[in-house]
Amino acid sequence: MTGIAEIEAAAERAAGHVRRTPLLSSPFLDEIAGRRVYVKAECLQHTGSFKFRGAWSALTGLGDKAKSGVIAYSSGNHAQGVANAARLLGVPAVIVMPRDAPALKIENTRALGAEVVLYDRAARENREEIGARLAEERGLSLVKPYDDPLVMAGQGTCGLEIAEQAAEAGIETADVLVCCGGGGLTSGIALALEARAPGFRVHPAEPEGFDDTARSLAAGERIGNQGPEVGFCDAILTPMPGQLTFDVLRRLCGPGLVVTDDEVRAAMRHAFLRLKLVVEPGGAVALAAALFHGDELEGDAVIVTASGGNVDPEVFAGVIG
Amino acid sequence: MTGIAEIEAAAERAAGHVRRTPLLSSPFLDEIAGRRVYVKAECLQHTGSFKFRGAWSALTGLGDKAKSGVIAYSSGNHAQGVANAARLLGVPAVIVMPRDAPALKIENTRALGAEVVLYDRAARENREEIGARLAEERGLSLVKPYDDPLVMAGQGTCGLEIAEQAAEAGIETADVLVCCGGGGLTSGIALALEARAPGFRVHPAEPEGFDDTARSLAAGERIGNQGPEVGFCDAILTPMPGQLTFDVLRRLCGPGLVVTDDEVRAAMRHAFLRLKLVVEPGGAVALAAALFHGDELEGDAVIVTASGGNVDPEVFAGVIG
Repeated sequence: MTGIAEIEAAAERAAGHVRRTPLLSSPFLDEIAGRRVYVKAECLQHTGSFKFRGAWSALTGLGDKAKSGVIAYSSGNHAQGVANAARLLGVPAVIVMPRDAPALKIENTRALGAEVVLYDRAARENREEIGARLAEERGLSLVKPYDDPLVMAGQGTCGLEIAEQAAEAGIETADVLVCCGGGGLTSGIALALEARAPGFRVHPAEPEGFDDTARSLAAGERIGNQGPEVGFCDAILTPMPGQLTFDVLRRLCGPGLVVTDDEVRAAMRHAFLRLKLVVEPGGAVALAAALFHGDELEGDAVIVTASGGNVDPEVFAGVIG
Repeated sequence: MTGIAEIEAAAERAAGHVRRTPLLSSPFLDEIAGRRVYVKAECLQHTGSFKFRGAWSALTGLGDKAKSGVIAYSSGNHAQGVANAARLLGVPAVIVMPRDAPALKIENTRALGAEVVLYDRAARENREEIGARLAEERGLSLVKPYDDPLVMAGQGTCGLEIAEQAAEAGIETADVLVCCGGGGLTSGIALALEARAPGFRVHPAEPEGFDDTARSLAAGERIGNQGPEVGFCDAILTPMPGQLTFDVLRRLCGPGLVVTDDEVRAAMRHAFLRLKLVVEPGGAVALAAALFHGDELEGDAVIVTASGGNVDPEVFAGVIG
């Protein structure tokens, strides 16, 4: 079980290795949202997303078990996080990625020294099966993208920072909107804030058509998405909440917020204009919810994660240009 | 005279108002430069550039004199810095801007509550004369963009942060490259580092054709640029180093580095890809020098300022797309 003790232990292992990302704001965003908006800029984390937190936590938490190598499956951000953590710790890494992941994410994962194994999303074998088989064959430790206590604890370090930075900024109560795929970041932040900022309420934010977490929270049980696992917000299109993560979400989070791809584009443009941040589609979902779904919130302050910035240049140019 | 005492006083006035911007890095940038590269992300400062530091320092340092209002002339970043500081302090602000400044900068200055007076760069009256006349007529205090002790002290707070952050990162000697227009940021950082990180050497970085500071340092006296004051790196195209700033530069800085507009474009693209930062042309000059003029440097670590991020979306899309 992941709790505040595990998150604090992960924060100790992270000190000097994981970046403390800034909490940014702009009067222009406040005006659009009708309340104070604070953006936790995880796109500035090493490898361009919060995923490095969980990867570092997992690899340092595994101890000797990680030495013979690690394996991960990921559409890209978890891949880069694990590859970079492995590189820094001198551990071999194999990453299983979908063939249609953004080119930048595949290229970066390779450049960080990992062996990349591509798979076809439409093929019969799924990524979990490929990962399990390679782990078995080569004696690698599997680093799951979210449904893992060490990974959840690592993502929770982002929540510790939010609590500290909000206190410095004098924020006592707030809605905290988190870009949500499998729920690793959302559950980690929720556990950290439960202990360190009990006046804060965490809401997952998801894109339309991939709102499995919002629907699962409404139903009180895990429900999957219909249809293909491909869309604009590629980083957070997981088929269903994790088991461990959903246990936390059900207890501490919700309701979920759901945004359109057009709202995500507008949020990316505002982050560019007002914060000078490059935010990828999946990382802009929470900001989109804060800017355009304020009627679903109550407090006068909202904190959002800008979870990642790994977007292909052509896509970003099309969004802002 | 501006010295470390004035910079520390400015830092005290800035606490809680000026953002402590992160010092970022990426293994991909290190590889290109052939040494460790650290980027001081001043584009994440309030109003999207370091200029807010100097503006805040000036307005808080002027005391009662500022109450009847302030005036500034600026191609954009100083304008936004002064407008925002005035807004936060409840002081009226008039900003004199060239008609051909980036639309985003003019728009933002107005949105921050300032009265904008546009002038034509080709006309006979220069911006200094317009500023002096309006200041006289309305009893406004002129906040110069760089050649002012309070402004230099404010920009120096960036140098204090660089010294602290470099110490945290274990950097003992480094070349510090600063995007240089009139020399306010360069001289402020040089004064702070002289006192706090004497192993560091500051070099101004400028675009080709606007290398007045590099040529002035080589000549030992102030030399102006030839030709028009218009170019890709709009933020730093000042006609000549300031008098107060050059006294500092001559004593502490150089030689200067000069980069091409194409190198600036490449640096902007690398900052987008590797750091997830939006950096404007004038703010990417120092990174361009670090990445592409390494043969003019000696140390194994280089720190660069990414001084601003106020670039029109169409321009940025064209650079990265």
